[in-house]
Amino acid sequence: MRVKGKHCRTVWMEGREVFLIDQNQLPFKFKIIKSSSYKETCRAIKTMLVRGAGAIGAAAGFAMAQAVLEGKREAGRREIEATRPTAQNLFYAVKRVYNARDAYQEAQAIADEDAESCKRIGEYGNKLIKKGARILTHCNAGWLAFVDYGSALSPIYAAHRKGKRIFVFVDETRPRGQGARLTAWELKNEKVPHAIIPDNAAAYFMSQGEIDLVIVGADRIAKNGDTANKIGTLEKAICAKRYGIPFFVAAPTSTFDLKCKSGKQIPIEERSREEVLYQTGITKRGKVEKVLVASPGSIAKNPAFDVTPAELIAGYITEKGILTPKKFQTARHPRL
Amino acid sequence: MRVKGKHCRTVWMEGREVFLIDQNQLPFKFKIIKSSSYKETCRAIKTMLVRGAGAIGAAAGFAMAQAVLEGKREAGRREIEATRPTAQNLFYAVKRVYNARDAYQEAQAIADEDAESCKRIGEYGNKLIKKGARILTHCNAGWLAFVDYGSALSPIYAAHRKGKRIFVFVDETRPRGQGARLTAWELKNEKVPHAIIPDNAAAYFMSQGEIDLVIVGADRIAKNGDTANKIGTLEKAICAKRYGIPFFVAAPTSTFDLKCKSGKQIPIEERSREEVLYQTGITKRGKVEKVLVASPGSIAKNPAFDVTPAELIAGYITEKGILTPKKFQTARHPRL
Repeated sequence: MRVKGKHCRTVWMEGREVFLIDQNQLPFKFKIIKSSSYKETCRAIKTMLVRGAGAIGAAAGFAMAQAVLEGKREAGRREIEATRPTAQNLFYAVKRVYNARDAYQEAQAIADEDAESCKRIGEYGNKLIKKGARILTHCNAGWLAFVDYGSALSPIYAAHRKGKRIFVFVDETRPRGQGARLTAWELKNEKVPHAIIPDNAAAYFMSQGEIDLVIVGADRIAKNGDTANKIGTLEKAICAKRYGIPFFVAAPTSTFDLKCKSGKQIPIEERSREEVLYQTGITKRGKVEKVLVASPGSIAKNPAFDVTPAELIAGYITEKGILTPKKFQTARHPRL
Repeated sequence: MRVKGKHCRTVWMEGREVFLIDQNQLPFKFKIIKSSSYKETCRAIKTMLVRGAGAIGAAAGFAMAQAVLEGKREAGRREIEATRPTAQNLFYAVKRVYNARDAYQEAQAIADEDAESCKRIGEYGNKLIKKGARILTHCNAGWLAFVDYGSALSPIYAAHRKGKRIFVFVDETRPRGQGARLTAWELKNEKVPHAIIPDNAAAYFMSQGEIDLVIVGADRIAKNGDTANKIGTLEKAICAKRYGIPFFVAAPTSTFDLKCKSGKQIPIEERSREEVLYQTGITKRGKVEKVLVASPGSIAKNPAFDVTPAELIAGYITEKGILTPKKFQTARHPRL
């Protein structure tokens, strides 16, 4: 994607250094961070400076390459795998780089494949989008969540470039607000007409006939098609089912976890309650402030993901084409 | 309810003056505001200094009494009715006070009836709550939303006082956060164990078998049982249906609008997009700050209510008992 007229990936590696867009500072500041060691890159993954399935995968691959170059192959793998438990791409990338002859080359290949897969997801997904379509998306499965293009947003960008006059409903995506902050920022950057809505409002717009299609990303897809994605995805899928709105998951096949028989086996990360109780934003004076937005002394629960059962999913938009859940479950797996 | 050891209603009238708890300052500050004219009381309703079905109704009744005492009977009615379009209690109270011989006495009677109805809702609703029940609620239909006791929270308080060891999941309720701010504050004040959850997480906890019962309030209930309530209520009802969790609406019969045949006729208030794009909270230094939490330049849509169809509702907890939707639709209406 282009930012301020310059092409830019979300994460890349040069020599022993990994470069990342600091997503915690977006949408208020666009800043590139340099990480000089695998430990620093681990911290970037853990603090969600880099986040999103593909971007985590690529960053983890680069971190593994850094660990190998630092002579910390075993310790590095353990530490990197401990950063985020849900994202399949992380385990996929770490394993590939760990087993490779040339760790650096392999990490670069993973990043390139991610970008290429996402581009193809856009081309396949575009076929599902009719002229004038009003599309709901949840969280950020855009360019920022991958190395380039994105998964759920890639078909949206492709349709927009074809002049289909689409409109995107952007779920705010509490508690971290990746929709309001990152997806809205990306769509504005690409001049795609959109509006942010509270997560609570998706069913309302569905009930009013204002949403034609839902496309979301995925953090891990089990063998039976059950899909772990950002908390709230399950609610949107249940509501879409009620209103007969097609619900698609867009993800490169690196997100499929064949060892995982069903969604019940996917571990769900519980994140800090602070993410729910506090909100960070920018004041009118341009200062970043963290404010308590809940009743002092109350606790919060903060599961970061949920699992959407395959029966609620109309299809999976992958770099190898659009798979229906049935096809997905009976056919030879695309990665095999 | 008791606050800091003293019994306090949400709104009351003495002479020509109306007193209100400033709900925009909660949970950070507990402050009583005095309104000396119907115009001031209108502003308090419009800016949501007072909010919630019953509290709006009582405040509107008092405002109408103020207008009568100020000799502005006609203009007053028009202005008060223009403050908030969705809440049935507002129109109910204004009409009663407007038509009464003694406006002041009538407004007082409405407030007293509201408190008494809510107390009975607690007694009836308590019967639905089993020992150890884990209950989800949305928005704030508590003491603060009425003159006293609350609707959805009244059964919860009753069950808690009976020692049933209940636990309450509190939906944050974006965009204004009435769950995180007001319901959590009320529950803490009454020492009821609870946790705030992001609105996105309700289906997740339902899917994990962690929620036994849902109780919400209502802003207007149509003749066929369709219920307008805070945005997001529809999503929770659809999800509860999927997981076979009973979904109850608690409301005094003043919330029923018999002239409204179905939910399609209920007007839905669209509020300012600023409520979605900005968040107000308190900094570590104790200062109230408003911060932008979305991508600068993106717009938002902000419908304040949605309509839950009667088929998703297990029953209506009223001051006259628990009505099933079927009973509700075929029986003589409780208010007739």
